[in-house]
Amino acid sequence: MAKTAISPTREENYPEWYQQVIKAADLAESSVVRGCMVIKPWGYAIWENIQKNLDRMIKATGHKNFYCPLFVPLSFLEKEAAHVEGFAKECAVVTHHRLEADSNGKLQPAGKLEEPLIIRPTSEAIIGDLYSKWIQSYRDLPLLYNQWANVVRWEMRTRLFLRTSEFLWQEGHTAHATEQEAREETIKMLNTYVDLVENYLAMPVAYGEKTKSERFPGAVNTYTIEAMMQDKKALQGGTSHFLGQNFAKAFDIKFLSAEGVQQYVYTTSWGVTTRLIGSLVMMHSDDDGLILPPRIAPLHIVILPLVRNQQDKPTVLAYCDDLLRHLQKLNYDNAPLLVEIDNSDNRPGEKAWGWVKKGVPIRLEIGMQEIEKNAVFMGQRDKAYNEKTSVSKTEFLASVVATLETMQNNIFAKAKQFQKDNTVEVKSVEEMYQFFDPNNESSGGFALAPWIDEPVSEEKLKQDLKVTARVIPTYMQGATGTCIFTGQTGAPYTLFAKSY
Amino acid sequence: MAKTAISPTREENYPEWYQQVIKAADLAESSVVRGCMVIKPWGYAIWENIQKNLDRMIKATGHKNFYCPLFVPLSFLEKEAAHVEGFAKECAVVTHHRLEADSNGKLQPAGKLEEPLIIRPTSEAIIGDLYSKWIQSYRDLPLLYNQWANVVRWEMRTRLFLRTSEFLWQEGHTAHATEQEAREETIKMLNTYVDLVENYLAMPVAYGEKTKSERFPGAVNTYTIEAMMQDKKALQGGTSHFLGQNFAKAFDIKFLSAEGVQQYVYTTSWGVTTRLIGSLVMMHSDDDGLILPPRIAPLHIVILPLVRNQQDKPTVLAYCDDLLRHLQKLNYDNAPLLVEIDNSDNRPGEKAWGWVKKGVPIRLEIGMQEIEKNAVFMGQRDKAYNEKTSVSKTEFLASVVATLETMQNNIFAKAKQFQKDNTVEVKSVEEMYQFFDPNNESSGGFALAPWIDEPVSEEKLKQDLKVTARVIPTYMQGATGTCIFTGQTGAPYTLFAKSY
Repeated sequence: MAKTAISPTREENYPEWYQQVIKAADLAESSVVRGCMVIKPWGYAIWENIQKNLDRMIKATGHKNFYCPLFVPLSFLEKEAAHVEGFAKECAVVTHHRLEADSNGKLQPAGKLEEPLIIRPTSEAIIGDLYSKWIQSYRDLPLLYNQWANVVRWEMRTRLFLRTSEFLWQEGHTAHATEQEAREETIKMLNTYVDLVENYLAMPVAYGEKTKSERFPGAVNTYTIEAMMQDKKALQGGTSHFLGQNFAKAFDIKFLSAEGVQQYVYTTSWGVTTRLIGSLVMMHSDDDGLILPPRIAPLHIVILPLVRNQQDKPTVLAYCDDLLRHLQKLNYDNAPLLVEIDNSDNRPGEKAWGWVKKGVPIRLEIGMQEIEKNAVFMGQRDKAYNEKTSVSKTEFLASVVATLETMQNNIFAKAKQFQKDNTVEVKSVEEMYQFFDPNNESSGGFALAPWIDEPVSEEKLKQDLKVTARVIPTYMQGATGTCIFTGQTGAPYTLFAKSY
Repeated sequence: MAKTAISPTREENYPEWYQQVIKAADLAESSVVRGCMVIKPWGYAIWENIQKNLDRMIKATGHKNFYCPLFVPLSFLEKEAAHVEGFAKECAVVTHHRLEADSNGKLQPAGKLEEPLIIRPTSEAIIGDLYSKWIQSYRDLPLLYNQWANVVRWEMRTRLFLRTSEFLWQEGHTAHATEQEAREETIKMLNTYVDLVENYLAMPVAYGEKTKSERFPGAVNTYTIEAMMQDKKALQGGTSHFLGQNFAKAFDIKFLSAEGVQQYVYTTSWGVTTRLIGSLVMMHSDDDGLILPPRIAPLHIVILPLVRNQQDKPTVLAYCDDLLRHLQKLNYDNAPLLVEIDNSDNRPGEKAWGWVKKGVPIRLEIGMQEIEKNAVFMGQRDKAYNEKTSVSKTEFLASVVATLETMQNNIFAKAKQFQKDNTVEVKSVEEMYQFFDPNNESSGGFALAPWIDEPVSEEKLKQDLKVTARVIPTYMQGATGTCIFTGQTGAPYTLFAKSY
């Protein structure tokens, strides 16, 4: 069996493989600051691509960006009971505003604040207070704002991208005159996330409502997108919340209706985070490293000049430069192709493997042999390393954009097929326990079962099988069956899985 | 005298006028969280334009973006003596990581951290530690990274944009093998800031080195860009620091040279902040509100449909739509023109004044009169409100891009002339005291004087006149004179001013 670039392989140790893919691609690393991560340039460039595309979608749906303070006064967080309950255990608390040397000359926190400030774990509380001032009349509605920010939730067990104490995200916060409009907004943004992850990150997702136990603290309904990783576990990729009038009442957000009546608004909030990068890595990568869908890749094509003989160097470099210029004139996904020449001193094999591990979709190896034929020697990241082909330059330039789009579609189709192959319909508790066999680590997947949403059976599944209800998928909307636990009819189909 | 949209006027009360311009343009507001601000959509859109242009320049000069944790362990901050000394008095300190109810049921900070964490006032300390791990050999150099982030410096007296406890910025951090290369980088980024502020924000600046007393804590040399506000005070717009080997020694950032010798690197750091928005407001606005240079405006043209008669409405709206479509096909500064139709219910005059106060460069008023002539009725923000002209649609579409560029240039030229008119050369201490007359609030400006950089005379000027040395301007490089305080010859020309 061929040696792989990443050790251990997915089969040998999936969680460790994930860490090694991140390391090999130089995406991020753990910080000395507990639970925080450093997002390195290659990882950050992926985040910038996610931001660019999602920001465009957010603006196209009528939202505007703004920026609210990092700090939430403790008294604000307390205003919504479920909300503070949900976040109290993971709050970073600022208590002092300067440092002062003690009698031993050691710096200590000084200047105690009258009221502790919480570093935002999310911004409903600070924004609730603002909206209560900004909203006066029905003319001020809907208020459709979003912010890109860092948030902090103190996590005890962290994993790069998937769960970190500080993470980056966007959080949309909207206020509406009617329940219907707020509900429509919640679903519209859920659909926007589906568009982002399926069409850019090439991640097929099951999406729909969360069960009661998994609701956002303070929400009436929480909607989610859930992706299946290669170990068949589910990973929540983003959430959209209908908050009803909970925050409106807690923060006194009222408006004068067209009919002259004082009413509470309905609010929503929705967010995706740097976690998406983790799920991208887990879903598409292989035992040779990262695989990036072209639409989200920081680089589409890398050109590797192969100089076997110093006298050939000018010829090879000139050919590569010419290729670069031609490629940069081409457009992919409404922007110029992203192309780079790797002029580093590393040995050819080392260079090529470096880019394989980083997941660049197309590698071009250019030596005198290709130049004599006016060709390129092309490797594609979605094929085996040695499966390279020589293509005439003309043909390559004519087809490269279509090749990238095909790769994008293939990466999505492969993940979609995997999800389909590992989703079953389960008709009884016995079938559920067979599907998620506690004695077989590789068992499981997505199990679709009619189920009446109540905490007792969900808790038992969690205890026995480490399985939870992930989502009541929209694609099963309207379909019902007999609840596998209670035998009640009219139970909606719910998707169960182990999860991250 | 005509009533102005902003009250008080600049002449009546400049600081209060500034606050009122921000309020009228809905750029930002103070938060209930002490010293923090909420950046509202119109203000944030200006920041996004600054980011977009500066980010392109930062990347074009070979830098990559990354992201480092919000928290700096206290022990890291302490490693560089001057650095911690400079920031200890304004640190937000995180001491606990959760909340717990006390015996009265009141939530209190709990889970005390072993080591307090400082919310980054700047990131040299956290990045110094990272660079010491990332840099091993000369092959790893130069390391050219930048991050866009929020930082916190606890300020006692705050003012929107100009001085807030939390602000947004970019901070570049680079490491180099040689002193010369690091010095070149410092100047290159200073020049990048000059390019940004002069060519996009239309803000002429005096730029060059800061005096000793105004150096960044831990820097060997600090360079600055200084702009003159309309009250003739200076405002620092951005800084670039040559840090020498100070941080390299504090954090043990060493590399193995090509010759096999272990050496300390040389580092730089450089940043601009949301303060730039404040200086943009202060420099260009008038007594009717904000004036935005077109290249940084979130909106270039607003179309105001004027419907005097309900039966004309479809005709007016169709004409406006058609105009919008034609305008959106035009490019300004390498991107489509930003155009919007204001369909709100407000009265025509109220609508128009709203956009005047927000600083939109061009307003088009469209009623039946214009439609019959196939024309537009155009107001420009750099002219008086009533100085509107009727232009044929064809002519308008053919000239609008040039008109915007002319406005951009005129706004810059006006500010440049103002700066020139209020800069004097001062040959003696007496002249300095005449120029900055303590009994005349409107005296002053930029005073250029030969001066030997030492703290005693600078402190005296500060005490007597509230004047400080702002910059040793590059455009006077090489020129020297007789120090106005000590009489020493060979003194470099230094620019003095009152400042924000």
